[in-house]
Amino acid sequence: MNIIQNYLKEKKENHLNELFSFLSLPSISALPEHKEDINKTAEWLVHSLTQAGLENASIYQTNGNPVVYADWLHAEGKPTVLVYGHYDVQPVDPLELWDSPPFSPEIRDEKLYARGASDDKGQVFMHIKAIEAILQTTGSLPVNIKFCMEGEEEIGSPALPIFVEENKEQLSADVIVISDTGMIEEGKPTICYGLRGLCGMEIHVKGPKSDLHSGLFGGAIQNPITALSELLASFHDKNGVITVDGFYNQVTPLTKEEKETFEALQIADESFIEQTGSPTLFGEEGYSTLERLWVRPTLEINGIKGGFQGTGVKTVIPSEASAKITCRLVPAQDPEEIVALLQKHIDTHKPKGVEVTLQLFDKGTPFVTPFDHKAIQAAGKAYEKVYKVPTSYTRGGGSIPIVAAFDQILNLPIVLMGFGLPDENFHAPNEHFHLENYDKGLETICHYWFELAEVW
Amino acid sequence: MNIIQNYLKEKKENHLNELFSFLSLPSISALPEHKEDINKTAEWLVHSLTQAGLENASIYQTNGNPVVYADWLHAEGKPTVLVYGHYDVQPVDPLELWDSPPFSPEIRDEKLYARGASDDKGQVFMHIKAIEAILQTTGSLPVNIKFCMEGEEEIGSPALPIFVEENKEQLSADVIVISDTGMIEEGKPTICYGLRGLCGMEIHVKGPKSDLHSGLFGGAIQNPITALSELLASFHDKNGVITVDGFYNQVTPLTKEEKETFEALQIADESFIEQTGSPTLFGEEGYSTLERLWVRPTLEINGIKGGFQGTGVKTVIPSEASAKITCRLVPAQDPEEIVALLQKHIDTHKPKGVEVTLQLFDKGTPFVTPFDHKAIQAAGKAYEKVYKVPTSYTRGGGSIPIVAAFDQILNLPIVLMGFGLPDENFHAPNEHFHLENYDKGLETICHYWFELAEVW
Repeated sequence: MNIIQNYLKEKKENHLNELFSFLSLPSISALPEHKEDINKTAEWLVHSLTQAGLENASIYQTNGNPVVYADWLHAEGKPTVLVYGHYDVQPVDPLELWDSPPFSPEIRDEKLYARGASDDKGQVFMHIKAIEAILQTTGSLPVNIKFCMEGEEEIGSPALPIFVEENKEQLSADVIVISDTGMIEEGKPTICYGLRGLCGMEIHVKGPKSDLHSGLFGGAIQNPITALSELLASFHDKNGVITVDGFYNQVTPLTKEEKETFEALQIADESFIEQTGSPTLFGEEGYSTLERLWVRPTLEINGIKGGFQGTGVKTVIPSEASAKITCRLVPAQDPEEIVALLQKHIDTHKPKGVEVTLQLFDKGTPFVTPFDHKAIQAAGKAYEKVYKVPTSYTRGGGSIPIVAAFDQILNLPIVLMGFGLPDENFHAPNEHFHLENYDKGLETICHYWFELAEVW
Repeated sequence: MNIIQNYLKEKKENHLNELFSFLSLPSISALPEHKEDINKTAEWLVHSLTQAGLENASIYQTNGNPVVYADWLHAEGKPTVLVYGHYDVQPVDPLELWDSPPFSPEIRDEKLYARGASDDKGQVFMHIKAIEAILQTTGSLPVNIKFCMEGEEEIGSPALPIFVEENKEQLSADVIVISDTGMIEEGKPTICYGLRGLCGMEIHVKGPKSDLHSGLFGGAIQNPITALSELLASFHDKNGVITVDGFYNQVTPLTKEEKETFEALQIADESFIEQTGSPTLFGEEGYSTLERLWVRPTLEINGIKGGFQGTGVKTVIPSEASAKITCRLVPAQDPEEIVALLQKHIDTHKPKGVEVTLQLFDKGTPFVTPFDHKAIQAAGKAYEKVYKVPTSYTRGGGSIPIVAAFDQILNLPIVLMGFGLPDENFHAPNEHFHLENYDKGLETICHYWFELAEVW
C-alpha cells in the first residue's frame, strides 16, 4: 500500500489541476442551456478514465444526457464492482452569494470551493485516481471494476434506469459502490445503508386571465397567491405533522435496534443548528432530529413564485402563482401513490375561485440495505485503516433515485461510501470539499478494493 | 363651444402624435434605472404645458421625482381649479404578455395601446389639450387653472405631500380636479366621490443561513416558504373575511342610501367575471361585489418569492422567502394602525423556527367627499352634455394616496372625473385607452370649465 500512497502524494498537484478542469465545466443538468457543457464533461470523463488505465471508456447516448462507461476486468475469480457516480451538478443561483465563482475552483483554508466539489464530481474523481494509483504502481487491480457515470442525477435520473435495464449484462456485478453521500461529521467515516426516496412536483394556481389592479378588483376575486398559500399551509399542522390523508400509511416503523443505533451516534441537536444557521430546529412532533431526517417522510417547498418580483411596490393581483414541492419518502412509501394522495388533498382543500393543477416532475423510491453485508463491512474496515476510528452506520435523508433503480434492476448489494461533510453546502452557494477527506478518501478507496478481494 | 370642438377635430392627428411621444417615455417610478426617463418626461410636460398657453411652467425638484407646475390666472373673480395628475407609470412585467411593446404606442381597433395610455398620461394629456383648445380659440379661460403633475403616484407619492405642504400658497385653489379614475362602463360617465386608502408592506421570513439540501436537512428545520404560506393563509378565513384582530374596527358601515345607490347602478357580477377572467367571483362573505370593491377593506398579496425559480427541479430548503402585501383601506381606517395590527397578528401567528419582519413601504388614507357639492354637480352636467346620459356617482376601489393628502393639507372639495374604462388593463400587460373617450373626454373637460365658472 505504501507504493500506492507515495504515488498519490507525488501526483497530488497534477491530480488537483485535473480536478480543477473537471469542476470548471458548468454541467448543470436542470438548465437546458448547459446541454453542451454536459457533453463536454462526458468527454472529459472518457479521457480521464482512459488515462487512469481503464478500458472500453466510452460515451453512451440515452434519451437524456449521456452515460459514461469504462471497465477493467482482468481480476479473474475476484468480485466485480460497479462504481456509480454523476458528473452533473445543481444550478448555482443565487449567484451573488458565492464568495468565488462556482465554476472557478479555488482552494481556501484547505477546502476546495466549486459547484460539484463534493456533490459529486470531487468524489467521482477520487474513484478514478484510486484506480490510476493502483494500476500505475502494481500493474493490476485486486477486483474487477466497471464505471457507470451519469449526467442527470440532479434532475432525478430519468434516462439511467432505461440504460441500466437495456445494458443489464454489461453492468452485471457483485456489488455496487457509490460515493455520493457524506460523513456524519469531520473525522467520522460513515456508511449510509438507507436513503429516502423522493417525488418532485409543481403546484400551479390559475386565477384571472391577466394581472389585475389590486385596487380596482381587490376584494371581489380570489387572489392566486392567497389560494396557493392556503393550500401550502394545509399540508402541515402547526407541529410539523403532514396532514395529507394517508401520507404516513405505508411508513415502516423504526425498530428498537435502529432507534438505539441512532442514539449511539450522539449527534447533538446543537450541531444541526450550527450547520443550518436556523434559529431553532423544527420538525414532526414525537421524533428525534435524526429520525426526522432519516426515517420520516417530509414535504418541503423548494420554491414559490407569483406576482411582482421587482423592487418597490406594484399593486397587482397576479394571474397565477406556483410552487415547487418535493416529498422525501421512506420505505415502503411509493412515489406514485404519494402524488395521488396529494392530488386528492388538493381536490378536497382547493380554495374557491381558482384552478389548481399538480404535475409530477421527478421520483425515486426509498432504499435500505442490511448493514452487516460483507461488502459493507469490508468498506467499514477500509475506512478504519485510514481514519483510525470506528465506522458509523447511518441512514440518509437525501435521495439518490438511481440507487433504488439499481436495487430493483440489478438486485445487488449497494455500498454508499461517502466522503462529503454536512456543512459543505451541497446544492447551495459556496459548495466545497475538505481536502483532508480528498486525501484520506483516495486512500480508503484503494484499501477497499484490496479488502473486498479478501473477504469475497 | 363649436369653435373649440372644431379646433380639437382639426388638431387631432397632431395631438395624437404628441401623445405618442409622451407615452414613449418609459417613466416607471418603481424602478431606479428609469430615473433619467422620469426627468425627461417632466421636461416633456413643461414644454407641452407652455405650448398649450399655460404660464410659469416649470420643474420643481423634490426629495424624489420632480413635480411639474404651470398656471393661467387671468380669470378675475372666477374660481381657481387645481388640476392634479401623474406622469409616472407602473412597471411592465411580464413583458412577454404585451401584444405590442409597452412604450411603442399603437392604435388598434380605435384603442390606444401603451403603458400609461389610461393611467394616467392619456388623461393628463387631455387636460393640457383642453386648455390649449380654449386658449387658442377664445384667447382666455373661464376659470383660473393651476396644474400640478407628479412623478411618484405609482409608488405612493412619497414626496408630493411635502411639496404641497411647502407650497400651500402657490397651490391654493377652490377645487381640485383629478382625472385618474374610470367610468363604470362604456358610455356611462362617472364621478367617483370616494377612494380606498392603502398600505403596502413586505413580509420577510428568514430561516437557515443559506439554502440547504432538502434531503439532508428536510424535516429537521422550518422551511421559510412553508412558514410564510402559513402566515399568509392566516390573514383570511375560507370565506374571504380578514382574520387580523381589530382590522374592521374603524370601518364606517355603509348607509342605506349608499347601498341603494350601488344597487341602482345595476352592475352584474357577470361583467366582473368577464373583465377579470377569474373562474368565479370570490370575496368577503355578506357583501355584494360593489361593496367588496368600494367600501370594504382588503388584504391582497401582490407578489411572493422564495427558493428556486428556474426550470426543472432544485431540491433546496431556501434561506428566506418574502411577500409583498397591500391592504386597501376604507374610511375611517388608518394605515399606521393597520400596519400595527398586522404586526401584532404576525407576532401571535409566527410559525416556529423562523424570524419574521414586516416593513411598511407605502401608505395612503381613504377619502370620501359629498357628491352633492356644486363642483361635482357641475362636472356631472359637463359629462351629460357630451355623453347624453345621466352621470353615475360611485366610489372607487383603488387608491390615489395624494387625494387624501390634498384633502388634509389644502382642505378643498375634490372632483374625480375619470375617462378610463375598467377593462383597459391598468397596471397589467396591454394597457390601453379607448379613443372615443379621449375625444369625448376632451370635450367634457372644456365644458366643465365653463359650467364651473357659471355655478360658482
